[in-house]
Amino acid sequence: MLSDIEIANAAVLRPIRDVAAETLGIDEEHLSPYGRHKAKVDLGYLASLADRPLGKLILVTALSPTPPGEGKTTTTVGLTDALHGLGHRTVACLREPSMGPVFGMKGGAAGGGHSQVVPMTDINLHFTGDFAAIAAANNLLAALIDNHVHHGNALDLDTRSITWRRVLDVNDRALREVVVGLGGHANGFTREDGFDIVVASELMAIFCLTESWADLKQRIGEIVVGYTRAGNPVTARELGAHGAMAALLRDALAPNLVQTLEGAPAFVHGGPFANIAHGCSSVAATRAGLRLADYVVTEAGFGADLGAEKFVDIKCRKSGLRPDVAVVVATVRALKYHGGVALADLGAEDLAAVEAGMVNLRRHLANVRGVYGIPCVVAVNRFPTDTDAEIAAVVRLAAAEGVRAFPATHFADGGAGARDLATGVLEVLAEPSAFTFSYTYDDEASLTEKVEAIATRLYGASLVTWDARARRRLERIEHDGYGGLPVCVAKTQYSFSTDPHAVGAPTGHEIHVREVRLSAGAGFVVVVCGDMMTMPGLPATPSAGRIDLADDGTILGLS
Amino acid sequence: MLSDIEIANAAVLRPIRDVAAETLGIDEEHLSPYGRHKAKVDLGYLASLADRPLGKLILVTALSPTPPGEGKTTTTVGLTDALHGLGHRTVACLREPSMGPVFGMKGGAAGGGHSQVVPMTDINLHFTGDFAAIAAANNLLAALIDNHVHHGNALDLDTRSITWRRVLDVNDRALREVVVGLGGHANGFTREDGFDIVVASELMAIFCLTESWADLKQRIGEIVVGYTRAGNPVTARELGAHGAMAALLRDALAPNLVQTLEGAPAFVHGGPFANIAHGCSSVAATRAGLRLADYVVTEAGFGADLGAEKFVDIKCRKSGLRPDVAVVVATVRALKYHGGVALADLGAEDLAAVEAGMVNLRRHLANVRGVYGIPCVVAVNRFPTDTDAEIAAVVRLAAAEGVRAFPATHFADGGAGARDLATGVLEVLAEPSAFTFSYTYDDEASLTEKVEAIATRLYGASLVTWDARARRRLERIEHDGYGGLPVCVAKTQYSFSTDPHAVGAPTGHEIHVREVRLSAGAGFVVVVCGDMMTMPGLPATPSAGRIDLADDGTILGLS
Repeated sequence: MLSDIEIANAAVLRPIRDVAAETLGIDEEHLSPYGRHKAKVDLGYLASLADRPLGKLILVTALSPTPPGEGKTTTTVGLTDALHGLGHRTVACLREPSMGPVFGMKGGAAGGGHSQVVPMTDINLHFTGDFAAIAAANNLLAALIDNHVHHGNALDLDTRSITWRRVLDVNDRALREVVVGLGGHANGFTREDGFDIVVASELMAIFCLTESWADLKQRIGEIVVGYTRAGNPVTARELGAHGAMAALLRDALAPNLVQTLEGAPAFVHGGPFANIAHGCSSVAATRAGLRLADYVVTEAGFGADLGAEKFVDIKCRKSGLRPDVAVVVATVRALKYHGGVALADLGAEDLAAVEAGMVNLRRHLANVRGVYGIPCVVAVNRFPTDTDAEIAAVVRLAAAEGVRAFPATHFADGGAGARDLATGVLEVLAEPSAFTFSYTYDDEASLTEKVEAIATRLYGASLVTWDARARRRLERIEHDGYGGLPVCVAKTQYSFSTDPHAVGAPTGHEIHVREVRLSAGAGFVVVVCGDMMTMPGLPATPSAGRIDLADDGTILGLS
Repeated sequence: MLSDIEIANAAVLRPIRDVAAETLGIDEEHLSPYGRHKAKVDLGYLASLADRPLGKLILVTALSPTPPGEGKTTTTVGLTDALHGLGHRTVACLREPSMGPVFGMKGGAAGGGHSQVVPMTDINLHFTGDFAAIAAANNLLAALIDNHVHHGNALDLDTRSITWRRVLDVNDRALREVVVGLGGHANGFTREDGFDIVVASELMAIFCLTESWADLKQRIGEIVVGYTRAGNPVTARELGAHGAMAALLRDALAPNLVQTLEGAPAFVHGGPFANIAHGCSSVAATRAGLRLADYVVTEAGFGADLGAEKFVDIKCRKSGLRPDVAVVVATVRALKYHGGVALADLGAEDLAAVEAGMVNLRRHLANVRGVYGIPCVVAVNRFPTDTDAEIAAVVRLAAAEGVRAFPATHFADGGAGARDLATGVLEVLAEPSAFTFSYTYDDEASLTEKVEAIATRLYGASLVTWDARARRRLERIEHDGYGGLPVCVAKTQYSFSTDPHAVGAPTGHEIHVREVRLSAGAGFVVVVCGDMMTMPGLPATPSAGRIDLADDGTILGLS
């Protein structure tokens, strides 16, 4: 089979204005083109559609993944192509790839095989400049903070307490912990600082949770950048930064429209981390899709304990959106992994391990239906090494839970490979739901109760414990009036517990909170359980060494 | 009079595809649009024009400026509009503004008054993403350097000798001197580092001196990032970084086309500093303009001792381009300043000071004609406080040098205000040149001789002295085989000397070289005389506090 970039480079793309007009009925005058195959859809036009009925929202999530991932993005694209191929007005809503990992180990993030969004190289590199705009606004605020301190510090900001970090869209471990302001008087006050990757920034989360320029500016103004010596929060508004930061994000806020390899429309917009942030593409794009199409297929990062939880408890809670059905992506490989097979041995048939690993998928299905109250199907994303007997076992095991499972081969076959899945999704959507949509916890619960609800209801934990310092931060955050915010749990995606090696469906474990961070602008409190990497590093042999530009402008070596 | 942004926001812009077709004969298929009013012109199309005759190249330069500047960019735009209004196929070639100063003190850099390029807010903020692409490629190389050291350091790179700095497009003094790699083993090796603003990067200079993807990659490969413990240079090619960096710059390399307020075409592309780099917009854009239009009006940063010198000795030398005429911008204010009047008192008529300050303009005119061998005119950029007697004095004093001077009011009146200037430029272009174009020094001269030629022939200095360390670096650079490169002098723009307060035309002074830096990829050796700021700071009341985004998406407060 050809590589992802070979398939993408060989694709014949249609002008994006034709895709917009024919698939979504958007007139060219409402598009801002970026090259011939990317466009932003004007926010004013989208606002004018406010009275339109909303289409159906299909949420793609997954069981706890193995390190290489189970194919949520390819399934989102494949399912979109299948629905599109069946003649339904359908749009995918995906996250924008981060450029950092493209040059490291992970490679691109625009789907794969015959289920990709294109132009693949553009989407993976720079795209329409959204991440650069977010970085510029983020770093302007950082400069204004140090500048305020340098020029007299009228707000009495305690430089030891500054929480706002600088960002770059690069994997660069050397920037994780730095000291800035060295070199004497002219360079400001020396202090400890650090850089995060753009996708880990609060500003990225804000960007993905807002739909208007006015709301964007309002939320940016509420960002808490640090504390005074007296311990009171200092906001971006007090620094006079929110207007200029919003101006820097004006154009970026309009959703980006591209196409799949099969010509279906796709919004690719925003891309927050799924640990320190909520891991979903923008509300602006999702709402636009629901107004323009009959079906929106979108994904949430990591497994259903993390991504779908945040989709429900943060994105839906703040936007009023509701998924109509969830597609839980499972693979034979991941089930065997949760059944105790080592990563290197997942290629061999092992029906007993598939059955044993079902404990993981079973709990995710129970959470999706029983806690979030969303009807669901399972997509069995087929890998070449999967045997027919293993695939049949997954279908049978899901059926025992009362959930239909559909093998899908969209990676190899494009939309045709996900046609059964699409038909199954349409069936569920046509039935009355047996479930009532619900959040995991109420706004009124204390922050502690919110974390406990997630830990006990979703993770199977029996106990939440807190570092003393995390507990004090939590109390301070509640004291400062942020106790009504939802929580955003940052923990490993590989397990229901905080131990990445605890596969399956652990119970009775302890969730230990190491750190608490306030994201007042985004409107949530991050609860850090275990290590959290907000600036990745490059591997010993980074993929940057393979990426090249041919003399004719063709980009090679992206994966 | 309205503010710049009020004028710009009130302008009715034409679709850029219409501007391209009607003013330059570029078919829409050769454009990559960025929104409706910006487009990149495809490099492949430009290469297909190689057989076309070249238009005339008009270089806008200036006398030694006062701190607020003398209006080179507005004169470039005004003259373009005047030629365009006279029915000549004309295009302006300008530098892209840096976003950092927009939020600091300087504001935007897209012209001013009724001589602006538009869309003004877009051009000043993000534009088509070129600077973000340059920053991404620059910082990828930085990450690859530290990553190489972290993973075994096979090249034996001496971390004390790393010269490649990280960049951001923000004014942020706290980043001038930093320590990176803190926090222990996982974060790499601790070392001193620093950030420059994007426009001060060598990569920006490379970007502005190349015209093809192949040459871009070649030059990037030659970047020297530091030295081994044995003292040998280590290049970006040895780190395997050049292919990925070139890929990041693929789209950026195509020139950006916008329009003036009067509908003339303008390429706005690249924007290197005029001290640490050569201060001119891209060769790719200039050459494109010369193939597409009969007249190209372009500017070089700072006064003619710095910007025009680098235009000639670096940009022309490397590209084979030749200016056909120079427009030396002078103001009554600057002449009075060089005649000894304090900055605060420049508003009062002072004919004696104008006459005294003529020494500065006189030397620039002598350099332009006698050293570079370019015929020239003087544009007297008129300010509201200038009296008719003062303006007449400048015209008379220039005439005494054998140079025609033309008062121009394009700031207030647009192209109509520069019509006399345009007519004068056309007259000079129609005459046979009395001068022979020449570089200030030959390639074969030693680096020392090159600096001495600039200092004595252009600056009026009698002596060049060197810090011992700078001298050693120079010797090492020559030993490593870079002695044939041109030099790029970084010194104050306010004086022919290295003392910014030495107005007029000082003679017999000493030029002291404090530091020498190799830009092997860009292909020049930077000779630093005096302080050089490669990362600006923000003022006590930054303009960021005035810049705002209205609820309807209008950006306010840019200047």
